[in-house]
Amino acid sequence: MSVSLADLRGRDPQIFTDGCPTRTVLDHVMGKWGILVLLALSDGTQRWGVLRRNVAGISEKMLASTLKTLEADGLVRRTAYPEVPPRVEYALSPLGRDLMQRVLPLMEWVADHAADIVDRSA
Amino acid sequence: MSVSLADLRGRDPQIFTDGCPTRTVLDHVMGKWGILVLLALSDGTQRWGVLRRNVAGISEKMLASTLKTLEADGLVRRTAYPEVPPRVEYALSPLGRDLMQRVLPLMEWVADHAADIVDRSA
Repeated sequence: MSVSLADLRGRDPQIFTDGCPTRTVLDHVMGKWGILVLLALSDGTQRWGVLRRNVAGISEKMLASTLKTLEADGLVRRTAYPEVPPRVEYALSPLGRDLMQRVLPLMEWVADHAADIVDRSA
Repeated sequence: MSVSLADLRGRDPQIFTDGCPTRTVLDHVMGKWGILVLLALSDGTQRWGVLRRNVAGISEKMLASTLKTLEADGLVRRTAYPEVPPRVEYALSPLGRDLMQRVLPLMEWVADHAADIVDRSA
């Protein structure tokens, strides 16, 4: 892993600057709820209620809006089955799974260091 | 990179649940401004004014509060030199540099895919 910011800027000097699409994606993906929903879906396809339990603390409204954003981004797939009562399932798309390959090592780091970081700043 | 959420939860079933320190760290690190400040500092030690230019669009107030949080977390080091006028420099700590090893591959992915994602959701 020898990517540096200079490498990224070398490709495009405007990258991560104000107005760059990367800023929008960061807002969607890196916001706390976005990442927690993607993380929960890494466990596999889930129905609404299960997903909501797996992202403890998220409100119905926030879950709905987060899923809508991630679906529009092409990171999450929503499948509605024409049953009674209606069944709706959410899953990572192939793009979302590819993204999570880069996110999970970071989450692992956070898991390993969070207690120390929070103790330090308390 | 074969980390899965199940691996993470296997270590600690409470991980990433409500109230877990990982949630606090996600708030600090993964918020848009936190990650952009850490990314800018990946280029090396910077004085306030340079850093502010490098994180285009951040307000003085947001930069000050983001730096304070990241410093308290032990991810950023602030050094004040007793000069006239005073000189203050910011740099990643060793912990911050370690974190960025996990963040940069993710930023690379975002850089590669952001335009497509934003086009799709437009």
